[in-house]
Amino acid sequence: MGIRVGIVGISGFGGGEALRLIASHPSFDLVYAAGEGSAGSRLVDRFPGVPSTLAELVIQEWNPATLPQLDVLFASLPTGISAEALSCVPKDMKIVDIGGDHRYVDGWAYGLADVWPQQIADQVRVANPGCFPAATLNALAPLLADKLIEPGNIVIDVKTGISGAGRGGANSQFSYADTNENLQPYGLLKHVHMPEIAKTIEKLSGGSAAGLVFTPHLVPMTRGVLATIYCRGGATTDQCFASARRFYAKRPFIRVTERPPQTKWATGSNLAFLSYAADPERNLVIAMSVIDNLGKGAAGQAVQNANLICGLPETAGLDGAPVWP
Amino acid sequence: MGIRVGIVGISGFGGGEALRLIASHPSFDLVYAAGEGSAGSRLVDRFPGVPSTLAELVIQEWNPATLPQLDVLFASLPTGISAEALSCVPKDMKIVDIGGDHRYVDGWAYGLADVWPQQIADQVRVANPGCFPAATLNALAPLLADKLIEPGNIVIDVKTGISGAGRGGANSQFSYADTNENLQPYGLLKHVHMPEIAKTIEKLSGGSAAGLVFTPHLVPMTRGVLATIYCRGGATTDQCFASARRFYAKRPFIRVTERPPQTKWATGSNLAFLSYAADPERNLVIAMSVIDNLGKGAAGQAVQNANLICGLPETAGLDGAPVWP
Amino acid sequence: MGIRVGIVGISGFGGGEALRLIASHPSFDLVYAAGEGSAGSRLVDRFPGVPSTLAELVIQEWNPATLPQLDVLFASLPTGISAEALSCVPKDMKIVDIGGDHRYVDGWAYGLADVWPQQIADQVRVANPGCFPAATLNALAPLLADKLIEPGNIVIDVKTGISGAGRGGANSQFSYADTNENLQPYGLLKHVHMPEIAKTIEKLSGGSAAGLVFTPHLVPMTRGVLATIYCRGGATTDQCFASARRFYAKRPFIRVTERPPQTKWATGSNLAFLSYAADPERNLVIAMSVIDNLGKGAAGQAVQNANLICGLPETAGLDGAPVWP
Amino acid sequence: MGIRVGIVGISGFGGGEALRLIASHPSFDLVYAAGEGSAGSRLVDRFPGVPSTLAELVIQEWNPATLPQLDVLFASLPTGISAEALSCVPKDMKIVDIGGDHRYVDGWAYGLADVWPQQIADQVRVANPGCFPAATLNALAPLLADKLIEPGNIVIDVKTGISGAGRGGANSQFSYADTNENLQPYGLLKHVHMPEIAKTIEKLSGGSAAGLVFTPHLVPMTRGVLATIYCRGGATTDQCFASARRFYAKRPFIRVTERPPQTKWATGSNLAFLSYAADPERNLVIAMSVIDNLGKGAAGQAVQNANLICGLPETAGLDGAPVWP
Repeated sequence: MGIRVGIVGISGFGGGEALRLIASHPSFDLVYAAGEGSAGSRLVDRFPGVPSTLAELVIQEWNPATLPQLDVLFASLPTGISAEALSCVPKDMKIVDIGGDHRYVDGWAYGLADVWPQQIADQVRVANPGCFPAATLNALAPLLADKLIEPGNIVIDVKTGISGAGRGGANSQFSYADTNENLQPYGLLKHVHMPEIAKTIEKLSGGSAAGLVFTPHLVPMTRGVLATIYCRGGATTDQCFASARRFYAKRPFIRVTERPPQTKWATGSNLAFLSYAADPERNLVIAMSVIDNLGKGAAGQAVQNANLICGLPETAGLDGAPVWP
Repeated sequence: MGIRVGIVGISGFGGGEALRLIASHPSFDLVYAAGEGSAGSRLVDRFPGVPSTLAELVIQEWNPATLPQLDVLFASLPTGISAEALSCVPKDMKIVDIGGDHRYVDGWAYGLADVWPQQIADQVRVANPGCFPAATLNALAPLLADKLIEPGNIVIDVKTGISGAGRGGANSQFSYADTNENLQPYGLLKHVHMPEIAKTIEKLSGGSAAGLVFTPHLVPMTRGVLATIYCRGGATTDQCFASARRFYAKRPFIRVTERPPQTKWATGSNLAFLSYAADPERNLVIAMSVIDNLGKGAAGQAVQNANLICGLPETAGLDGAPVWP
Repeated sequence: MGIRVGIVGISGFGGGEALRLIASHPSFDLVYAAGEGSAGSRLVDRFPGVPSTLAELVIQEWNPATLPQLDVLFASLPTGISAEALSCVPKDMKIVDIGGDHRYVDGWAYGLADVWPQQIADQVRVANPGCFPAATLNALAPLLADKLIEPGNIVIDVKTGISGAGRGGANSQFSYADTNENLQPYGLLKHVHMPEIAKTIEKLSGGSAAGLVFTPHLVPMTRGVLATIYCRGGATTDQCFASARRFYAKRPFIRVTERPPQTKWATGSNLAFLSYAADPERNLVIAMSVIDNLGKGAAGQAVQNANLICGLPETAGLDGAPVWP
Repeated sequence: MGIRVGIVGISGFGGGEALRLIASHPSFDLVYAAGEGSAGSRLVDRFPGVPSTLAELVIQEWNPATLPQLDVLFASLPTGISAEALSCVPKDMKIVDIGGDHRYVDGWAYGLADVWPQQIADQVRVANPGCFPAATLNALAPLLADKLIEPGNIVIDVKTGISGAGRGGANSQFSYADTNENLQPYGLLKHVHMPEIAKTIEKLSGGSAAGLVFTPHLVPMTRGVLATIYCRGGATTDQCFASARRFYAKRPFIRVTERPPQTKWATGSNLAFLSYAADPERNLVIAMSVIDNLGKGAAGQAVQNANLICGLPETAGLDGAPVWP
C-alpha cells in the first residue's frame, strides 16, 4: 500500500522531474497533480512518455481547500508564489518545497539531505535547497566542519544549464536562437541563493560568511551545474580529500573524485561529484562540485528528503544510474 | 536469486546503456563485463556514476573460453566483430546481440520485440535490430500487415543523434568542433541497415520491398532517431491511426500519437512514438517514428528481448519515464 | 557615394543578418532601419557588435509616409504582414522582400538569383524565395532543365536550424529547454513554401509538379538547412553532376560537390552546396542541397538580388568565407 | 599590389580562421599555406567554402628552406612545435605566431594589440597572446593601470568553447558524445597561460601578481570565451567603467558594456566586450570579458597585429560584424 503523494507545479521542470522519479518510486503513489498552465489536461498530454499507470491523471487547478488526503506534497512553484500557495495546506500534511520561499523559515527544515539527514528525518515541512546551494554546500561542508578553510571571503563561480532557470518568467527569455552557443554571467553581486548559502556556511563553520561572492553563468546545455569555489585556507589537496571522504563515508549519493568532475556524470541522477585542488603556498583551496540541477538540485533531493521524512530507505527510487552519454 | 547476466562491449554506447538498464533491473544481476579498450579497469573508472553495488566489478578482456556461467550475455560489439567473438560461446548460453552480425542469420531470432514477441520468447539467440530498422519497422508494421501501403518503393529518411554512430572507428571522426551545429547526410544509396529492413518489410507484407530507399543524416544532438517514411498507398490518416492502435493495442512500449513526434519524448526510455499523415489524392502515406537510439534502438530493446527469452514480464527494468527536458 | 538602403523588420533574424551584410557592403549605406519591437532603440542597443559607424542609428517605427529617400529597401517582416506594410511604399523605390507575401505576385520578380539572374536584374520589386525553396530549387533546377528527373511526385525532406523559424509568433515556442537535443517534423502534408516550389518546378520543367511532397523538420542548431530530395528519373549520378556543373558554371555562389554536403560548409555565407546520388535501377535520383537559412535562405540572397537590381557586381559584399568551425 | 602572406598550421582552427580573415583582407594576398595533416591537398579540399580565388592553392609541407618570399607569415602550430619550426625562417620575414612558444621571448613583441599597439607597430616578430590571456588582460589592463585593483591574488575563472582547445592532441579527446551537454574544469592550479598573464599583470601594474589563480572550463559550444575575474580593490563600479572607457577610448575593438556580456556578441569578430561589477564593502571588483577565442583569441588579434606591423589601418579586414544569432 503506497504512500500517497501529490505534486503542485507540475508544469515546471522541477515538477516534471519529480513526476519522473515518483513514477518509478517503489513506495510513492502519485494521486494528485496540479499546475497553473495545464489544469484540465491529462498527464499524458503534458508528458507524452509518462508511464501508462499515470497517463490519465488529470492535472488540477491548485486549491488547498479541495486537496485530497496526501501523505506528502511536493511543491515546485516559482519563488514568491510558494509561500502563499502552501499557507493553507493542512498543518499535518508533509510538504517538500522545491521552491525558495521556505528556506530557513521557522517550522521548515532546510533539506540539505547529504549533510544533516538527521535534522530532516522527523520533520513535517522541508525546504529543499536551491540548486546552486545544493552543489556548493555539499562541497564545502567537510572543509568547514574540519576547519580546513575560512568561512569568509568564499568566491563561488557557478555554471548552470538552462533548465536551472525554471519554466516561467525568466525562462521566457531563453529562446533557442538567443541561448544556443552562448554563455553569459547574470545575477552579479547579489543573487537570491546567497542568503541560504551564507547561513549554512555559518551554521557548518561556527564562523562568519562575510565577503561571500557568488556569480552564476548560463551555459548552453539543458541540465547540469558545476560550482568552482575558491576558498582561503592552508590545507593540502590530500587533507581536503580525506576530509570529504570521512564526512560522506556513509552517504549514498556523494562521490568524491580525484578526476575533475564533469556535469554529465550526474545527469539524470541524484548524485553529486566533489573534487578538490589546493595550494598551501597561495593559501588557496579550490572545491568543485557537479550535480544535475533537476536531480540533486531539485526533484532528486526532494525525493531524498521525502524518503527521510517518511522513514523510507534514503535511496528509494533514487538508485538509477546517470544517463550517459 | 537473480538472473546472471554479462555484457561484452561495455566500452561502447550500447554497452554503457545496457549497464544502466541492467543496474536497476529487478531480476538481472550483472556479474561479468568485458570490453576492448577498458580491460582491467573497474566499472566505476569508466562510469563514475555506476551504482555502488557494481562499482568494483573489473572489466575483463573478452575470452569466451573463460566466461563465467551466465544466463544471458548482452553483446554490443562493432559490426564485423560480433560474429567471430560470439562463435565460441557455449551453445546453451542465451545471447542478445545488439550488434549487426547476426540479423537474419539462421539460429538467431530477429528481435523486433514490439512486433513479434512470440517469435522471440523461446529463443536462445536474439539479434537486436539496428536502431534505424527499430524505428522504421515499428512504424510500418501495422500498415504493411493491413495492406494500407505498398511494400515497394518506400523512402526512409532518417535523422540520428551522434551516439547512433557508436564509439569505435566511425565515431573517431565525430570531433565536437566538426560535428556541433552541423547536419549532413551519409551512407547514400546503400546502408548496412537496408537488408534487414527489406527482409522485414517482405516478411510483414508478403510482398516485395524492391525500390527501397534509405538515407540517414547525422544531427547535432547526443540521442534520438526520427524516421520520416514516405510510402505509396491510398489510405487515409484515420485508417493509418486505427491500424496502428489495433496492432499495438497490447504492446507496452509503443505510443501512437496524433501530434508529430519529437525525439525527446523517448529519450532515456524504451518507448517508440508513432504518427501518420496521409493524403489519398497524392497516394501518399507518411509514417513517422521516434525512438532513443540507445533505448529502443539498442539496449532498451535488448533488455526487452532478454525479458522475453527469460520469461520475465516484458517491462521489467524498462518502465522508467523518459528524461525531460 | 553609396547606395542608400534601409531595412524594415530589423528585429528579426533576417533583418539582423541583412544588417550584418550591408554593414560591410562596399556600396550600400544603411541610412534607415525600422522594427516593431525595438523602435526608439539605437542599433547598438539591439546589436552590441554592430560596427561603430552604424551604432547610433535609431530604429524607427515603420511608417511608409515618412520614409526617407532610399535606393533599396530590404523588408524582413512576418508572413501576412509584409503585403500591407509595403503597399504604400513609393512605386519607384526598389524593394527586396525577404518575407513571403510577394512571391509569384504580379509586379514582383521571384528572386531565385542563382537560376535566373537575368529575370531579376532590371526589376524594381523582388520577392526573395523562402529558405526551403532556395535550398530545394537550386538543387533541382539543372535536373529539371535537362529533363533528368520527372517534375512530378518529388519528395522533399528538409531539415532546418531553429533560426529558420523566425523571431515572432512561431519562435516564441522555441524555448531552449524544449528545443535543445530534440528533433521533430512539422507542417505535415502542406506548408506555406509549397506553392512557390511547385510553381518554380513547373516553370523550370514545363511539366506538372503534381504529387509534390514536402516535410520540414526542426533541428537543434541555430543556422543551416539541408534538403534531401527524392526524385523519379533514370539518370546516373554522373549525368546529374555534369548537368549541375554546366548549369552553374558561371554562377559564383553554387558549389557542386561530390562529398555529401554539410550545413556548416555554408554557415555565415551566401553559398549553396549541391550534390547528387542516383540509382537508375530504382529510377531514383537523390538531390542534396545545403545553405545557411539566413544566408542563401534570406539576407544573403536578398543582398545578391539587390546587387542585381542595382547593377552592381553580384558578389559585392558577399564574398566572405563561411565561418568554420 | 598586395602584401604577400602565408599561413603555416592551416589545418588547425587558428589557421583556418586566419584563412577566412585573410581571404577578405583588402591588402593581404595569401600566397602560401602549409599544414601537417593536409599537405598536398588544395585549400578547397580542406575548406569547401573557401573563396574561389584561393581554392586551388596547394597546401605545402612545412619547410623553411623552401619558403617563398613572404611579407608576413602567420604561424598557428601546437605549443612546443612552433619554436623549432620557425627557428630557420629568414630573420627579416615578419611573423605573427598564434601559438604559445614565443610569448615573452626576447626578440618577440607580446601582441596585446588593444593595450600597447605602439610596442608592436615596428616589430618583425609578434607573439600573439593565448585566448584566455587575451580575454583576461584586456579586462584588467585599465584597472591595473589606474590602480583600482591589487595586482595580487587575482582569481580568473574562464569558460571556453571547445575550439579553444585546438585541433591536435588535446582535441582528439573531444568526441561529440563525450563533450556535448557536458561541462568540466581542467588544468587546475597551473595552466600554460599563467606565466604570460602574470608577467603582463606585473608589467601593467608595476606590482606583483603573486597568488594568481586561474581555472579554465570546457563549455559545450564551438566558439567563445568568457572570463570572470575576481579582484581585490575598493573601487566602485562607476570608477571601473570610467577607467575602462578612458583606457580604450581610441581602441576600435574594445566595447565597454553595462549589460553583462554574452560570448555570442563577439562570435565571428575581433571584438572584446568588457564589463565590471564592484562592491567596495567586500573589497571586491569583478571584471568580465568575452571574446571569440578564434577571433580576438587567435586569428583576429593576429591579423590586427599584422596590420600594425605592416603599417596598415588597424581595422583592415577586421570590420565585419559578429555573426548573430
